[in-house]
Amino acid sequence: MSLVVVGSVAFDAIETPFGKTGKILGGAGTYIAIAASNFVEKTKVVSVVGEDFPEEYIQKLKDHRVDLEGLQVKEGEKTFFWSGKYHNDMNSRDTLVTELNVLEHFDPIIPSSYQDCEYLMLGNLSPIVQRQVIERMDNRPKLIVMDTMNFWMDIMLDELKKTIALVDVLTINDEEARQLSGEYSLVKAARKILAMGPKYIIIKKGEHGALLFNKEEHVFFCPALPLEDVFDPTGAGDTFAGGFIAHLCRTDNNSFDNMKKAVVFGSALASLTVEKFGVDRLEYLSKEDLNTRLREFENLLKVEVDLV
Amino acid sequence: MSLVVVGSVAFDAIETPFGKTGKILGGAGTYIAIAASNFVEKTKVVSVVGEDFPEEYIQKLKDHRVDLEGLQVKEGEKTFFWSGKYHNDMNSRDTLVTELNVLEHFDPIIPSSYQDCEYLMLGNLSPIVQRQVIERMDNRPKLIVMDTMNFWMDIMLDELKKTIALVDVLTINDEEARQLSGEYSLVKAARKILAMGPKYIIIKKGEHGALLFNKEEHVFFCPALPLEDVFDPTGAGDTFAGGFIAHLCRTDNNSFDNMKKAVVFGSALASLTVEKFGVDRLEYLSKEDLNTRLREFENLLKVEVDLV
Repeated sequence: MSLVVVGSVAFDAIETPFGKTGKILGGAGTYIAIAASNFVEKTKVVSVVGEDFPEEYIQKLKDHRVDLEGLQVKEGEKTFFWSGKYHNDMNSRDTLVTELNVLEHFDPIIPSSYQDCEYLMLGNLSPIVQRQVIERMDNRPKLIVMDTMNFWMDIMLDELKKTIALVDVLTINDEEARQLSGEYSLVKAARKILAMGPKYIIIKKGEHGALLFNKEEHVFFCPALPLEDVFDPTGAGDTFAGGFIAHLCRTDNNSFDNMKKAVVFGSALASLTVEKFGVDRLEYLSKEDLNTRLREFENLLKVEVDLV
Repeated sequence: MSLVVVGSVAFDAIETPFGKTGKILGGAGTYIAIAASNFVEKTKVVSVVGEDFPEEYIQKLKDHRVDLEGLQVKEGEKTFFWSGKYHNDMNSRDTLVTELNVLEHFDPIIPSSYQDCEYLMLGNLSPIVQRQVIERMDNRPKLIVMDTMNFWMDIMLDELKKTIALVDVLTINDEEARQLSGEYSLVKAARKILAMGPKYIIIKKGEHGALLFNKEEHVFFCPALPLEDVFDPTGAGDTFAGGFIAHLCRTDNNSFDNMKKAVVFGSALASLTVEKFGVDRLEYLSKEDLNTRLREFENLLKVEVDLV
């Protein structure tokens, strides 16, 4: 099955209680593509960078079998740059710098070789760009998963709702689900958001796990793995999304039961990402590392429920 | 198997965004005993009330097969009274009134008919009183479960640690686990607290579920059921404890696998308690209500994990 990923390919500079990086490879599209690339034959990226984006990073993505035909390199322009500092609890952070640069006027190009796309992952980006990507596909993909954030709710809610109406799965964090729905209860929030169009919603609660809801009011909960240390939470949500869609793409099965497995798969990958800065942990991930982690999730969740 | 419960039997006055009560039946011992009473032959309570405690409430407890031989009624004194107001998010509350009254000089009496105790639940109370109860048992019970709170960490940490060293299972919330251990990571916090004596620790995270750890570093996670509305969170932790020990007592099996079932059992009961004010929901609980809820937990957690 063919997977197309749209999302930023960028520079990040991260400060956590454990240390500080210079400008490193980051961006939603990067995390999603690298997370997915171990499990699908080819991950096709639609994105944009500036002429300052180093060949070394291009090569790193290619080494992970990421197809970059859809990556525009803008001469005379600079790559998107984000810098943030995490607080001691690792659950909150301050954004220090956001330089949109090439992302400001990003006009996504879909190469003809991407038109076989069956699984489409819309990483966090302007909902207008996300919608353009859907519209520029000759055929509607079998499954469209969309990530977004509160920023777009604040500045272009109507555009966001138009895009949400077109997708199959929306991933969003708990505070954003509350903001988008106006409901505090996540059960009510999920119901309202599902009424906007998606068949499934995944509410991400960070260290408290993730909830998957469908329109038939089925719900599944996957915890986050309790970790000794969270080294750098950057990209955890994007890694989750990459693992989630990669599992669906490689199994080509969009049943609720398989979505549950995909949530565990994404959670397992995300729990690894946060163990190192940036994409470092994902890059040197062995099959055995991931299987060990998947078994930990299995143990964490496994229980026989006795009725009375 | 015989279950003894120590904990406050009290008056509560509760205000939530959904409404307000007058003085109603409350207290940790009350919630624990009523939650447990449906599943064990007799729940034996050690507690104290004042002469203002109405006969109606005594009868209510007796109707639930709660043995009150260990309940002291102090003439000329008043029952413990707590009043609190929940904020809109239902996760935080202000204590409006705390009148210790009879609890201030509570000297627990263990009737001889309680000396067959095999399962002992120490509800949240002064750690000195909790320890007196253990010491006044002729034989050490097969399993001792202890609940506590940050208040005791603030004012008598050394006494608290002495009592913790004597129990098998400690239940505590996430912030309290962090305070007691000085560790932010709950994995590290659990390890440090287990080194203080208990064989198991349950870290309660409210709407985010509960974690069970043992000394061998096994961990199990049980989510809270996502609810449409939390009507009144008062007593959820105590109900959890009551359900947890009741499951262990009725099955008389303290393996890690059975502890996991007990955590689900306690969580299911707690998810019911919060649907009404005070003990109202617990009081009219049918076997079918509980089984329906247990099945919801089963569905919430059930997943096959595929390795790659």
